Amino acid sequence: MKFAISSLLAALLLSAASASWAQQAPAKPEQLIKWRQSVYQVLGWNSGRIKANVDGQYNKEEVIRAANTIAALANSGLGSLFAAGSETGKGWKETSAKPEFFQNPQRVGELAGNFNREANELAKIAATGDAAAVKAQFGKLGQTCKACHDDFKAKD
Amino acid sequence: MKFAISSLLAALLLSAASASWAQQAPAKPEQLIKWRQSVYQVLGWNSGRIKANVDGQYNKEEVIRAANTIAALANSGLGSLFAAGSETGKGWKETSAKPEFFQNPQRVGELAGNFNREANELAKIAATGDAAAVKAQFGKLGQTCKACHDDFKAKD
Repeated sequence: MKFAISSLLAALLLSAASASWAQQAPAKPEQLIKWRQSVYQVLGWNSGRIKANVDGQYNKEEVIRAANTIAALANSGLGSLFAAGSETGKGWKETSAKPEFFQNPQRVGELAGNFNREANELAKIAATGDAAAVKAQFGKLGQTCKACHDDFKAKD
Repeated sequence: MKFAISSLLAALLLSAASASWAQQAPAKPEQLIKWRQSVYQVLGWNSGRIKANVDGQYNKEEVIRAANTIAALANSGLGSLFAAGSETGKGWKETSAKPEFFQNPQRVGELAGNFNREANELAKIAATGDAAAVKAQFGKLGQTCKACHDDFKAKD
């Protein structure tokens, strides 16, 4: 994923909570934080599904759906959700991203690139239906998650 | 999307909040509700990006990323997030899904199928870079969202 925090478009987002398609307003830091936390929730849901499949009964189609969702999110341009000004939201407790995350864009970009690469590889492998290969690749993907969490995610 | 609330795998999900890949436990209703609300947040983020593009300066790559994310979520098997027992969470206020949602699986399935179809069509059209066609298809997609919200989503 590109971690260029560049796009002004990120400031022109709809309120996700609203059913209206008409309104537009700059995204507030707390909105960005809510969106990115939601992304991680969805990543967790789909990671959990893959884990359940590789550890239990394997359903090729479910793994494909979950892996494709993870890959799409990895490719979605998550960097815009960490735009300047979203370091704290209303207060430190509202984000699990450490201040160091925002101070090390190059390292974050490397870690994000690793996540992106392994997520796309997982989607490719999932399409083959090879459960053992999926399990191995899922492990690699998990390591890229952990690498970033270790350095840049505050403990719960 | 298939709305068959069938898979036992849905009960074997990791806690999304945990960095651990090892633990597994049945997903509680409040976890399912959190996941599905997160899905809608991510849909809202990406819908907002598409709207900003079709109403303003058009960035083909950003629209592709956003449309692919919406399509992946539409294809991800969201029905499992509305499993029996998740009608209310800890209390009615915790979910915006009306009781009628759970009482009309056939109608919900139709509406979900419409959403799925238009989301996949949007991803196809986005790949062409035709902004006018994307705008038209985005409108169709929004109508499928609204159709379900009108009947089955409680007012905020």
